[in-house]
Amino acid sequence: MKAVVKTNPGIGAEFLDVENPKPGKRDAIVKVQATSICGTDVHIYEWNEWAQKRIGKDKLPQVLGHEVAGEVCEVGSDVKKIKTGDYVSAETHIYDPRDLTALLGQFHIGERMKILGVDTDGAFAEYIKVPEAVCWINDRAIPPEIASIQEPLGNATYAVLGEDNDVAGRSMAVIGDGPIALLAIGVARTCGATPIFHIGKYDFNMEIGKKMGSDHQLYANKEFDRVGYIRDHTGGYGVDIVLDMAGSPQALEEGFKVLRRGGRFTAFGIPAKSPLMIDYADGIVFKGAQVHGISGRKIFDTWYRVRNLLASGRLDVSPVITHLFTLEDYRKGFDLMMERPRKSAKIVLFPDKDEFERAKERRL
Amino acid sequence: MKAVVKTNPGIGAEFLDVENPKPGKRDAIVKVQATSICGTDVHIYEWNEWAQKRIGKDKLPQVLGHEVAGEVCEVGSDVKKIKTGDYVSAETHIYDPRDLTALLGQFHIGERMKILGVDTDGAFAEYIKVPEAVCWINDRAIPPEIASIQEPLGNATYAVLGEDNDVAGRSMAVIGDGPIALLAIGVARTCGATPIFHIGKYDFNMEIGKKMGSDHQLYANKEFDRVGYIRDHTGGYGVDIVLDMAGSPQALEEGFKVLRRGGRFTAFGIPAKSPLMIDYADGIVFKGAQVHGISGRKIFDTWYRVRNLLASGRLDVSPVITHLFTLEDYRKGFDLMMERPRKSAKIVLFPDKDEFERAKERRL
Amino acid sequence: MKAVVKTNPGIGAEFLDVENPKPGKRDAIVKVQATSICGTDVHIYEWNEWAQKRIGKDKLPQVLGHEVAGEVCEVGSDVKKIKTGDYVSAETHIYDPRDLTALLGQFHIGERMKILGVDTDGAFAEYIKVPEAVCWINDRAIPPEIASIQEPLGNATYAVLGEDNDVAGRSMAVIGDGPIALLAIGVARTCGATPIFHIGKYDFNMEIGKKMGSDHQLYANKEFDRVGYIRDHTGGYGVDIVLDMAGSPQALEEGFKVLRRGGRFTAFGIPAKSPLMIDYADGIVFKGAQVHGISGRKIFDTWYRVRNLLASGRLDVSPVITHLFTLEDYRKGFDLMMERPRKSAKIVLFPDKDEFERAKERRL
Amino acid sequence: MKAVVKTNPGIGAEFLDVENPKPGKRDAIVKVQATSICGTDVHIYEWNEWAQKRIGKDKLPQVLGHEVAGEVCEVGSDVKKIKTGDYVSAETHIYDPRDLTALLGQFHIGERMKILGVDTDGAFAEYIKVPEAVCWINDRAIPPEIASIQEPLGNATYAVLGEDNDVAGRSMAVIGDGPIALLAIGVARTCGATPIFHIGKYDFNMEIGKKMGSDHQLYANKEFDRVGYIRDHTGGYGVDIVLDMAGSPQALEEGFKVLRRGGRFTAFGIPAKSPLMIDYADGIVFKGAQVHGISGRKIFDTWYRVRNLLASGRLDVSPVITHLFTLEDYRKGFDLMMERPRKSAKIVLFPDKDEFERAKERRL
Repeated sequence: MKAVVKTNPGIGAEFLDVENPKPGKRDAIVKVQATSICGTDVHIYEWNEWAQKRIGKDKLPQVLGHEVAGEVCEVGSDVKKIKTGDYVSAETHIYDPRDLTALLGQFHIGERMKILGVDTDGAFAEYIKVPEAVCWINDRAIPPEIASIQEPLGNATYAVLGEDNDVAGRSMAVIGDGPIALLAIGVARTCGATPIFHIGKYDFNMEIGKKMGSDHQLYANKEFDRVGYIRDHTGGYGVDIVLDMAGSPQALEEGFKVLRRGGRFTAFGIPAKSPLMIDYADGIVFKGAQVHGISGRKIFDTWYRVRNLLASGRLDVSPVITHLFTLEDYRKGFDLMMERPRKSAKIVLFPDKDEFERAKERRL
Repeated sequence: MKAVVKTNPGIGAEFLDVENPKPGKRDAIVKVQATSICGTDVHIYEWNEWAQKRIGKDKLPQVLGHEVAGEVCEVGSDVKKIKTGDYVSAETHIYDPRDLTALLGQFHIGERMKILGVDTDGAFAEYIKVPEAVCWINDRAIPPEIASIQEPLGNATYAVLGEDNDVAGRSMAVIGDGPIALLAIGVARTCGATPIFHIGKYDFNMEIGKKMGSDHQLYANKEFDRVGYIRDHTGGYGVDIVLDMAGSPQALEEGFKVLRRGGRFTAFGIPAKSPLMIDYADGIVFKGAQVHGISGRKIFDTWYRVRNLLASGRLDVSPVITHLFTLEDYRKGFDLMMERPRKSAKIVLFPDKDEFERAKERRL
Repeated sequence: MKAVVKTNPGIGAEFLDVENPKPGKRDAIVKVQATSICGTDVHIYEWNEWAQKRIGKDKLPQVLGHEVAGEVCEVGSDVKKIKTGDYVSAETHIYDPRDLTALLGQFHIGERMKILGVDTDGAFAEYIKVPEAVCWINDRAIPPEIASIQEPLGNATYAVLGEDNDVAGRSMAVIGDGPIALLAIGVARTCGATPIFHIGKYDFNMEIGKKMGSDHQLYANKEFDRVGYIRDHTGGYGVDIVLDMAGSPQALEEGFKVLRRGGRFTAFGIPAKSPLMIDYADGIVFKGAQVHGISGRKIFDTWYRVRNLLASGRLDVSPVITHLFTLEDYRKGFDLMMERPRKSAKIVLFPDKDEFERAKERRL
Repeated sequence: MKAVVKTNPGIGAEFLDVENPKPGKRDAIVKVQATSICGTDVHIYEWNEWAQKRIGKDKLPQVLGHEVAGEVCEVGSDVKKIKTGDYVSAETHIYDPRDLTALLGQFHIGERMKILGVDTDGAFAEYIKVPEAVCWINDRAIPPEIASIQEPLGNATYAVLGEDNDVAGRSMAVIGDGPIALLAIGVARTCGATPIFHIGKYDFNMEIGKKMGSDHQLYANKEFDRVGYIRDHTGGYGVDIVLDMAGSPQALEEGFKVLRRGGRFTAFGIPAKSPLMIDYADGIVFKGAQVHGISGRKIFDTWYRVRNLLASGRLDVSPVITHLFTLEDYRKGFDLMMERPRKSAKIVLFPDKDEFERAKERRL
């Protein structure tokens, strides 16, 4: 089959013929209909410090990608939850059922879990092998390019809902303008957060944020009293909920400042360097803040909510999908992902040209 | 001042000149801009069994009404939270700060609380006396006819959110088609519940429910397998959340049946007779159901959310307001409220004719 | 091997030689060290209406029992979580991973789950086959007779903690005096519930309840104003939490009456007949009660807590274990379980005589 | 009356005759039976940087102290919750009912709240003026020296329970050995936390921690792999809950390390300098940690639980009370509080010598 493969250390990847995956006893083989590019894929493509350390050259060659939607075309001998013909996506966090977190129902943050497309061959291919345990059956009302981005949409949904699911009628600030931040704005809007303040950098993405439902657009890279503005628009108190999707020192500093006393701070963005300076005393202790560290998606509570929101048409994430390419044109996708100022959000690839054409038509 | 007064046992009320209320030390006098009719007002107007027992003829005469929006025109000597000129509504549950529930932050269900318009003179008048403790400052973006119905909208919001605030991406069945059920559909829709099944009786109200956002309309008074229909549309499992806003034996029976295992059942509707038969074993214990008894509104957490939802325009409750009258025309309102099949939902009265005219213009 | 087998409809069971169980790919074979008698076993032994309907004569013969502790002596080819030599107990609810509840982390109440010892051969034998998915690795500090009763202790723990885990410093009434009620008193005491009112019938069990930590013992079968007594001892308000472990009409009536407004009612006991009369209006709606339907144990959150409580010695459940017998003497156990007034609580059986002797020594 | 008064900038305080306090309309005058020394009192006594900034010399003279138990001897004209003769303690956080947090039920962390004994005259006197709103009626089963320390015990209780009240059967690490940490160990033990690891410095206090219920004592100031030790004793995962009561860089670093994935971190200790370095990426985000900023006590949910725990004798905090003095001997108390290595925990002062004698007898 054709696949986008990381073959060597250094920037880039190749479009190659590789062997089709074969299922283990509890695996499914999924024929990929759509697969989307994540920031993690870009890190591996660029072969940055994280990728060198996390994957390492000895594991190459490896097929990239983990966001996916497709049809199950083969299952292992002991597979029970799914069957050939099912229309599925994949949870990226392949949990180990022996982990304490798995025993306690927190499958997404286990000690021994593996990451699809990082620890295993990925989805930028015609076929992908997925353990049955992390297959999720999609609603057929959701087209493949949307179903593929359910994975980052799940991140966004978990980040918006936090551990307490309390968002209805709550004010919110979303910091960051990457694809997950833009999806989070959509989820927050659909789930009753109001008002929504969006802090970001790039016009292209701020505009998408507005389409997704932000009420106020504030630029992180302009001289402007963002903290004062948000306090002025929340009775002087600050917002009930802050979603940090950026992880930068500025984001964390401003985030804790615009949070009202007793509010919730979603810690989602990953700082480039950690440890880093946090105003722990005033930002957390005295403020009585609740900081929710969020990584991944609840398995499968988040997926279930996402399916409900998408299948009914309540949530329209199409503004966040800015580009469609055939899998063969993956380089165009990666180039766009790395461009600054940003000119793209979510980019979806299609191994099959007919599916690509149908997706383009659906976008009209 | 003019007021609608219950003067005698038996049906009806009179439009009379009464003395203006005078504030106690911790009271505010509110000039009523809009006041809406609640089912409780109808019970008192009809002087039904509940009213005879709860109020009693010895307490008459009494001014009716408790849903209100208006301007503070006078405050008692010790009032600190509000001031003359504030635009306010009133929480109906006048809590006693000595109650255990008040000490524990559950102000709305105290042993010794009084009910505005039931235990005190009410809002169907030019002026009403309201204890400072239950005044809520409105956002001026909310017009009086909407601000007045925040009280039942608060019921609806608390019922939708339950004690766990978990509604985003959850499927829901709303049983009942009175005004609070219709408002609940709107809140549920705005806060990400999906899909929403509505079970009711009257075409007029089912139609409003649809405008407020119900996805499926099922008639309680027609031969139809409602339980089967809802299961069919939820993968065979039933809904995550049931809101019973009817309280009838049929509603409770069907409600527990359409609830999925491990789901949440909001107990809001009041049965005409209680105790009554409940399928406690299969409906609650084996199902692992969580039943949330909901009465009133969280003081003031619910009000805060309602204000956010309304002020931003996220939630449009205007379809539920079906009629506006001057206070003098209160009889038209009560007649409509008592008509079956229903031909009205929420009815708002205006003591001031100019405000009435402005409200009519806003409706166009 | 030797096993206690239900062979025919009608009361009783036989001690027979049966074939040893063989593991499926994902099963473990456990050499039984201790196994305890549950009320469900008694129902099957008696072959009551429930047993006739739930199991049916066509499924006989069947080995009884599901509470167990023992050593893994063989595992199927695909078993990964456990290994030979592990000291385990078994979660009785064999969930189906395809159920919606399983996807949402509520494994214990699935539509398609099977019950160990009801839908499968059970633990009153020298060996039992247990699906890997429901094996729980015990702490070796916990002796077999205690490890075996972790299953009902898990029921008790989940009932005490409810869905919100909120029990510290809360007042509680426990209604019922079966073994799980007695265990619940111990858990409640160990987890900070105070004061604890115990309502039961039999002196023998009330005395054990006292040893487990009840502060007040009230008899359900004596003329006494239990509701008034509990209110008098809780400032007039009633208790924060009611655990109904009886399910009788009287228990439910009194339970909702002694619950304070805004309190939590754990619905655990199974009424002999359902539907039944519940004071839904005053007991749930107006009171703002939260009713937590509890069945089974959280998989494996409850097990984890139980292990911590037992392994550290914080919780001593030995007073609830009233009798030890060899497996061969199972009839003595069943006779005692059926005796009224009660003269036993938890009864543990031992297939191995040496283990039986060791257990007796540990009790001294 | 006699009182301990801060008269001048610089270390120390004086024992003076001052005028008796007079109640405002909504105040109570409390005859002090017992009053205990808090770290905050020491800061003011020492007149450290915080005190100079927070209070300032222009506000002097001021009576110190805020932990108190006594009898109401006079009430203002509008007081309704309490009456002369009530046996009360005082919540230190005098909330402003206009604050958003107060409207939302989070009274303890308001923007405009005042602190008793910091913003007002305090409790190191024969009489103290307390706003009715923050009076709490004690159970008479609790002697004054215990009732006085309910305030820090409330801190400890809120810290142990966190925002989710989930502590039963959970493993815990308590970092710090000041009086609140020692009280927290007692609460944790009484409420089912197990095992409890205690990290502290001073033998004197570690010994008290052991009496209060710690299972493992680890010294922060000795060469020892504390993180490894705790992981080894928790199956390799770390503890479910960390209570940081120290606020030092070492405490925060080790605290986030010993927390298991998906665990809860109570942020209670105040760092000497903030911002400071936090391992936000690995400690919070990737770990899926929930950080609960805790300041003060829930008003009055925490007080209610504390009362239940103390009145029933479940929780014995007497080991934490190391010294009793007459109020006149306050200098001895302050000297002990400032001594390092620590040789004291909680110190209680008595304005009345007879009460002092009775307290000494109760200690025998």
